[in-house]
Amino acid sequence: MHFASDNTATICPEILQAIADANQGSVGSYGADALTARLTAHAKDVFETDLAVYPVGTGTAANALALATLVRPYGAVLCYEEAHIATDECGAPEFYMGGAKLVTLPSPDGLITPMQIESAMARAIDGGVHHVLPEAVSITQATEWGTVYDPERIGAIGAACRRRGLHLHMDGARFANALAHIGCSPAELSWKAGIDVLSFGATKNGALAAEAVIFFNPALAAGFERRRKRAGQLWSKMRFLSAQLIAYLENDLWLRNARHANAMATSLAKGLRAIPGVRLIQAVQANEIFVAMPDEMIEALQAAGAVFYRWIDVAGEPNPVVRLVTSFATTQTELDRFIGLAGQHAAIAA
Amino acid sequence: MHFASDNTATICPEILQAIADANQGSVGSYGADALTARLTAHAKDVFETDLAVYPVGTGTAANALALATLVRPYGAVLCYEEAHIATDECGAPEFYMGGAKLVTLPSPDGLITPMQIESAMARAIDGGVHHVLPEAVSITQATEWGTVYDPERIGAIGAACRRRGLHLHMDGARFANALAHIGCSPAELSWKAGIDVLSFGATKNGALAAEAVIFFNPALAAGFERRRKRAGQLWSKMRFLSAQLIAYLENDLWLRNARHANAMATSLAKGLRAIPGVRLIQAVQANEIFVAMPDEMIEALQAAGAVFYRWIDVAGEPNPVVRLVTSFATTQTELDRFIGLAGQHAAIAA
Amino acid sequence: MHFASDNTATICPEILQAIADANQGSVGSYGADALTARLTAHAKDVFETDLAVYPVGTGTAANALALATLVRPYGAVLCYEEAHIATDECGAPEFYMGGAKLVTLPSPDGLITPMQIESAMARAIDGGVHHVLPEAVSITQATEWGTVYDPERIGAIGAACRRRGLHLHMDGARFANALAHIGCSPAELSWKAGIDVLSFGATKNGALAAEAVIFFNPALAAGFERRRKRAGQLWSKMRFLSAQLIAYLENDLWLRNARHANAMATSLAKGLRAIPGVRLIQAVQANEIFVAMPDEMIEALQAAGAVFYRWIDVAGEPNPVVRLVTSFATTQTELDRFIGLAGQHAAIAA
Amino acid sequence: MHFASDNTATICPEILQAIADANQGSVGSYGADALTARLTAHAKDVFETDLAVYPVGTGTAANALALATLVRPYGAVLCYEEAHIATDECGAPEFYMGGAKLVTLPSPDGLITPMQIESAMARAIDGGVHHVLPEAVSITQATEWGTVYDPERIGAIGAACRRRGLHLHMDGARFANALAHIGCSPAELSWKAGIDVLSFGATKNGALAAEAVIFFNPALAAGFERRRKRAGQLWSKMRFLSAQLIAYLENDLWLRNARHANAMATSLAKGLRAIPGVRLIQAVQANEIFVAMPDEMIEALQAAGAVFYRWIDVAGEPNPVVRLVTSFATTQTELDRFIGLAGQHAAIAA
Repeated sequence: MHFASDNTATICPEILQAIADANQGSVGSYGADALTARLTAHAKDVFETDLAVYPVGTGTAANALALATLVRPYGAVLCYEEAHIATDECGAPEFYMGGAKLVTLPSPDGLITPMQIESAMARAIDGGVHHVLPEAVSITQATEWGTVYDPERIGAIGAACRRRGLHLHMDGARFANALAHIGCSPAELSWKAGIDVLSFGATKNGALAAEAVIFFNPALAAGFERRRKRAGQLWSKMRFLSAQLIAYLENDLWLRNARHANAMATSLAKGLRAIPGVRLIQAVQANEIFVAMPDEMIEALQAAGAVFYRWIDVAGEPNPVVRLVTSFATTQTELDRFIGLAGQHAAIAA
Repeated sequence: MHFASDNTATICPEILQAIADANQGSVGSYGADALTARLTAHAKDVFETDLAVYPVGTGTAANALALATLVRPYGAVLCYEEAHIATDECGAPEFYMGGAKLVTLPSPDGLITPMQIESAMARAIDGGVHHVLPEAVSITQATEWGTVYDPERIGAIGAACRRRGLHLHMDGARFANALAHIGCSPAELSWKAGIDVLSFGATKNGALAAEAVIFFNPALAAGFERRRKRAGQLWSKMRFLSAQLIAYLENDLWLRNARHANAMATSLAKGLRAIPGVRLIQAVQANEIFVAMPDEMIEALQAAGAVFYRWIDVAGEPNPVVRLVTSFATTQTELDRFIGLAGQHAAIAA
Repeated sequence: MHFASDNTATICPEILQAIADANQGSVGSYGADALTARLTAHAKDVFETDLAVYPVGTGTAANALALATLVRPYGAVLCYEEAHIATDECGAPEFYMGGAKLVTLPSPDGLITPMQIESAMARAIDGGVHHVLPEAVSITQATEWGTVYDPERIGAIGAACRRRGLHLHMDGARFANALAHIGCSPAELSWKAGIDVLSFGATKNGALAAEAVIFFNPALAAGFERRRKRAGQLWSKMRFLSAQLIAYLENDLWLRNARHANAMATSLAKGLRAIPGVRLIQAVQANEIFVAMPDEMIEALQAAGAVFYRWIDVAGEPNPVVRLVTSFATTQTELDRFIGLAGQHAAIAA
Repeated sequence: MHFASDNTATICPEILQAIADANQGSVGSYGADALTARLTAHAKDVFETDLAVYPVGTGTAANALALATLVRPYGAVLCYEEAHIATDECGAPEFYMGGAKLVTLPSPDGLITPMQIESAMARAIDGGVHHVLPEAVSITQATEWGTVYDPERIGAIGAACRRRGLHLHMDGARFANALAHIGCSPAELSWKAGIDVLSFGATKNGALAAEAVIFFNPALAAGFERRRKRAGQLWSKMRFLSAQLIAYLENDLWLRNARHANAMATSLAKGLRAIPGVRLIQAVQANEIFVAMPDEMIEALQAAGAVFYRWIDVAGEPNPVVRLVTSFATTQTELDRFIGLAGQHAAIAA
């Protein structure tokens, strides 16, 4: 019953096998190997466009490097106020950007709007040189509340960005889960909707440690390779990063894993929703569910071995909120046990 | 015949197996797992002292994080002018340190001296607030010229550092190779000789991607964990970093691998030394050899498939200098073929 | 009718004279002059304590240098969400601190509370290494809404800081105006109430360009001089910075100037309060007043030559808000004309 | 007998008067004043071209801001190894550039050559992403050894820069002295010879505190104003910076001051050259002279009240080297006394 995060899971077997398969002979280091070249070809196929793809080891690195490439040190990024980049990366974006700021926007469900972007830009411009100038917007897919931007919504944000000369970045730590939910093509959920740069996550969805920064306009990537090197993010044995990402994309592994994780979340939500005292706080669209439940129920579940986090308080909700995350490795047995325990506790408490 | 670098090699089988073995069940992410705890215990045993050990993915990250912890943004690091941190990390130390400078010192063999440290400190202090203030010395083990600091030499540098209030960092990307050469204990080659912080390399010597920053005085590590996180160097599936490092240390794998690589370098040097027109430029003490050879011989070897780099010019040496690096995976067959080709070329040219 | 800011005013005559008086002979540069030494003695007298005082040219530099000295790059500063450091310095604090964040707190009147500090610390600590760690609190005196922290209120914040191991910084761009309002001693409004470091402003209150960073615990100032130099904030002809600050402190010039500015603000507020359609938005305690007035009145005043800024919207107030700032150089004639024009417009509109 | 630096001198009377004259009425702050507009017009006349000019308070700020505008954080600047930016600004360029490196070049007289630029670029490019990429060259005028680049020499460097896609910056802390020596037009010594950005110094040559960053291609200045603001270098009472610079340029004050300082240096050099045991180390072309003299003579002069610095050792010169700097305020009486004392000491020692 590990629902703390999808990154507590194992490496999925196909990806571990790909690492083993890549472990043959001497090859050029730092990306001068055949697998890394193949990864680029693969990514172009999957996203149906020319692009530049750069593997790195962590999602925080992917986000921070992407933003540093888009935003100058005297600039700023607009994002949701509880965005991972704003609250869970210990200031990595600010560090990589050389001090540029995140200007944050409130939201009840993690989704931000074109109108918020307009207002923030109007205020920044009004402030002249005394205010930082936003140069990019960053949205998270799926969001920090487990909700998903559909292509129309991204398109509207993309249009606002183009009007204001802003770049549009997507933190796609759970891009696969969002895509599995929407069911459109990867292109439709990214560059066709206006995304300039995507932090493409694989670690949470089955990799050992592999993320990729994908520039849909390769010209935007100027300088990226030196930025990655000076950030200590250029692996010498790069083939093992590329091998993970190739296996992830091959045979739709990424989507199969994501579909499983999403189905587990839906099932978990369905089971919990029926329990008295438990309230779903957000729509369940990907592999995270947020439920309010009594303190005693939380304690009982944790005492029984369930692992998960309490989340931030939600206005108007008397009970604490917890986050439950499923992964490619979550089993129905785990869900049943968790739901069963919660139900038992509710019955006793009633 | 891959002698470009020891990072063109594979993962050694024991380490790949350790990754597979660690791939069981859900565990806490970001280091809250049993393997990461075991790694610390292991490292304390190996180094016979209390210490704090932090795994990261690349050697550049290890160096840059270590130096950023030791040196304030208005400070400086003293190092050899061709040190890896000065010339091969695309400014990573300066980035991580927030702009602090590397003040470089010349050397014929990559080894720097206590007297150079004294002179640099005297000049810096003389310059007052107009000059950056060195706060650390960084030495590379084995050096960029394949030479090795013995404990006495480190001890003398360590004493100079203590006199001047400087921290002493070791870039130990090839620490195992140096240790295998000297034959002393890990403690004698590190903290007992005055090293405060060690970038402990494993990738070049058989890991997939695994380095560790080791603080022999854990108090010095204050803030390190947040620095690592904001640098995007904290792996979520940390168990797979720790598993590599445990396997590396277990059963002396690190030393066995290093001894093999060193023996290969010695054998290669012996073979080449006998060839007319080839000159060894530096003592061969670890797993790198530097030889001057005629341009035509270089071209003939490369045409035959040998992979290696031309190095920087050496004063007084008419021929170009090349670097040849051996690894745990280098075979005597490769050496024989390379030596044979060089000998043939020399014979033809004569 | 210049009410845009107190920095649109001239140099007050005593300070210009002090610059001229200091213009005699060759003296040591970069602070090695007699006036700079005298400034320190003077400041100790005024604040009745040992301290270290460092002149710089701008208030933004004073704030950014002070915070960079108190907070490490992976740290954070707690401050009001509309604090000058957060919205009007184009990211200078983040730049100087090497990327550390400002974590902002809401407030209806610019004053923040000990409870807000407690909550922010609890959340940060709960987030572990994924969250930046606040290491300082910064408060503005007088605030961005023209209100003033009294010694008790500062004392309560200081106590919260000590409980949490936070440093306490005061942006005292209008410290003199606040002090003139409260009528206590400089010590009571600063270190006795728990302030560790004060950005002591003089430019807005009569200097050409002169601010000082004052450390009430000189040990906290370690490294400050190199930080100032590398920030390009160390004047070579330092005597002219010191001369301004000495003249500012001598014969209570700073307090006389501030009392005049405050009296002008009070008088302006009194006049405007009586005009129909004009509403005071904040208590008038220093030299800034914030009034809501109809759009047409704003336009009429500006058309008549009055210079001032529209401010951010205030919830529940239908009319736009404007900020009016008085200075040592403001005259009653200016006020009378402004009030008269506003009154005329109100009469016409009625 | 103050020869420590030209920044130990006073404000020249014309500039102090200009400050007093500017002290009338309320004007827009942060550069929104008539004097700042006039400065731009003036600078265009003096340099006979379109340009963008930004006043700042110190030379270190001017250099660091200029370089930060030209070079990205993963880039580098090529400069002389004893350049002021490399050794006397406590890392300000690295701080402002966000960690970009200075890659230094040796020189016997402070002048660097196009061939050095070529070699450095070849090496950097050869190193690929592992090496920082130079994006600008910075030369000092007059140099740190008091020598002067003539237009031909600058032109050759400018051509090398264009071939390699490098920007060319000039640290013109003593631009007036160099110009007075050469006798050409300001345009010929700057943009016509290939300078992109000039740090135009006034403080050392008579201002209180005033330098200007001049972009001869205004398009290069994009973002400069926000960079200046976030660096704490935007004065609120900007009129007093602009007034200094206007007075400096008006009626050739800058050139008259520089000619005087240069003549004093020439006279001092002539007097010292005749003294046994004293040796001129560099050509005297501006207002700095470097002489080797016996330790006892140095001590005798300092004991008699002369103020000056010992400089770095010069290879092959047995005696210590001292630097003597003259200014607009240096008098022949001071020179005569200094020469007389040196001569007396030589006579006694003989």
